[in-house]
Amino acid sequence: MTNIKEIAQCAGVSVSTVSRVLNDHPYVSPDKRKSVLEAINRLNYTRNINAIHLSKGKTNLIGVIIPFNNHPYYGAIVNGITKQANAIGCHIVIFQTNYDREKEIQAFNMLQMKQLDGIIVCSRISEMKILLDYQKYGPIILCEDTAQAEFSSISIDHYAAFSCALEYVIAKGYKKIGYSLGRKKSRNSSHRTKAFNDIMSKHQLINNEAWLFEGSYHIKDGEQLFQEWNSMMDKPEAIIITNDDTAAGFILTARKSGIRVPEDVAILGFNNDSLGEMLDITTISLPLEWIGKMAVDLFENPEEVKHVKLDYALIKRKTV
Amino acid sequence: MTNIKEIAQCAGVSVSTVSRVLNDHPYVSPDKRKSVLEAINRLNYTRNINAIHLSKGKTNLIGVIIPFNNHPYYGAIVNGITKQANAIGCHIVIFQTNYDREKEIQAFNMLQMKQLDGIIVCSRISEMKILLDYQKYGPIILCEDTAQAEFSSISIDHYAAFSCALEYVIAKGYKKIGYSLGRKKSRNSSHRTKAFNDIMSKHQLINNEAWLFEGSYHIKDGEQLFQEWNSMMDKPEAIIITNDDTAAGFILTARKSGIRVPEDVAILGFNNDSLGEMLDITTISLPLEWIGKMAVDLFENPEEVKHVKLDYALIKRKTV
Repeated sequence: MTNIKEIAQCAGVSVSTVSRVLNDHPYVSPDKRKSVLEAINRLNYTRNINAIHLSKGKTNLIGVIIPFNNHPYYGAIVNGITKQANAIGCHIVIFQTNYDREKEIQAFNMLQMKQLDGIIVCSRISEMKILLDYQKYGPIILCEDTAQAEFSSISIDHYAAFSCALEYVIAKGYKKIGYSLGRKKSRNSSHRTKAFNDIMSKHQLINNEAWLFEGSYHIKDGEQLFQEWNSMMDKPEAIIITNDDTAAGFILTARKSGIRVPEDVAILGFNNDSLGEMLDITTISLPLEWIGKMAVDLFENPEEVKHVKLDYALIKRKTV
Repeated sequence: MTNIKEIAQCAGVSVSTVSRVLNDHPYVSPDKRKSVLEAINRLNYTRNINAIHLSKGKTNLIGVIIPFNNHPYYGAIVNGITKQANAIGCHIVIFQTNYDREKEIQAFNMLQMKQLDGIIVCSRISEMKILLDYQKYGPIILCEDTAQAEFSSISIDHYAAFSCALEYVIAKGYKKIGYSLGRKKSRNSSHRTKAFNDIMSKHQLINNEAWLFEGSYHIKDGEQLFQEWNSMMDKPEAIIITNDDTAAGFILTARKSGIRVPEDVAILGFNNDSLGEMLDITTISLPLEWIGKMAVDLFENPEEVKHVKLDYALIKRKTV
């Protein structure tokens, strides 16, 4: 069985240079890298790389669990993860689960089998008990608000962020207020719903269940949301919409129908996307890329469990 | 060293069931899966999984090389890849390269080291010679127009698609025509530029170099493009813009400045995105998700080298 020493001899370089090449370490001259790779080729070393991973326990792969692909919220987090993973010489393996338990477990099994160095969970359906079973196999970073002592986490206070949005809409004089969510049952949605119920009742405003809209993810959903709103006899005067993409879909469809925003209906979004900025959408800016970047930082420092909370900001523009 | 037989005995299941669990095969009952995983845990089997990969040579990981993350064109292709990979029980490892040779080679090295089952190259800077060196290690699928006999490929005829766009703009009576690109030096751009030069000269129209704009990727780039266009003394009457996102940015900024599309300037985009549809942007529909799906199909059937070309379509709307 070829070993690193033989490769080093064959390539005429040091053992540590071979090790650097095998681990894709950036500080290796192109010439030396070439010699090492040629030596590996000559010695037909390929079949042994997994044995090296076995002994070193490193793959430079980080698993990323997301429920949906092509989703503005998770997409922005994954962008942040990808950038930061790139910066530390790691690559990401995407597990798109559609909240299927089996698919989440696949990712954890790969961690157990040392095919991944760690996992960043952007959103999950598996119980904490399951995660606890796997935490001995490598760092699991949660992008959620948790006090679970075993896992580092990074989150935004969705309750506070939504409350801030709603208080602003109320302060602007709106009384008949609705809101839209992605999935009602998601963790973020439950925070938003609680904030909505609390603040509306605090101000003694009517909480009309018909004004809770679901399935808001993309621009096209905003078109649908507008149609629903427009067909109502009793319409809310303001809607707090899941994200700027959906808000943009609503506003652009409203314009085509001659409905003015905010004169006929006020709209507030979340995320602070480019499209929202271009359409002057009042929004709550959420540092989604930063969540991704910080998650990789937490992954890199597994000995220190931390619970980081990032801030949000109200961006006042022209749709409320 | 624990082997599969011991796990099977310990779990009270057949060897083939253990094998299915280890390979994340879908047809295993949850109960059996649980027994196997518990047995593995008891026998501390973890450290051997890479040895199994070694003997089987399968990781269920497909490398995907993209130049940029968060890019409408590559993003749509990656969506297609992710969906189809999911359907066949594979996961994707993303290599975002910024056209850095070293980073591309990292991906190919991982193929060589059997950490990946294959690679889908969405766009590349490495010469074909390099790819040929690595093709013996696993299927490499190219998302580009190539006749290279060693690699399956999937592509769109960008020359023909751009020609179709330009002929339509000309047929609508426009004579002063500009266009925008992402990177001038990309493979797609070179096809588009050649088409522009050929068709403009065929119609004896003036090819004004000042009307070639670069750096068009996102909505915000469309805002910038509009400012550039608006500050010109001699303006093109029509612009064919890289993609619908950038076209949308142009149109939304134009509206704010009281410039009408198509009355003051005609705009034609590419991709046929939701946002483009919502803004009634005339566009060339490109089957980008399909490229991704087909690339995975080609990866799955490596014994048969195929060169697939997908079709495009002109979508006539209101901006030309």
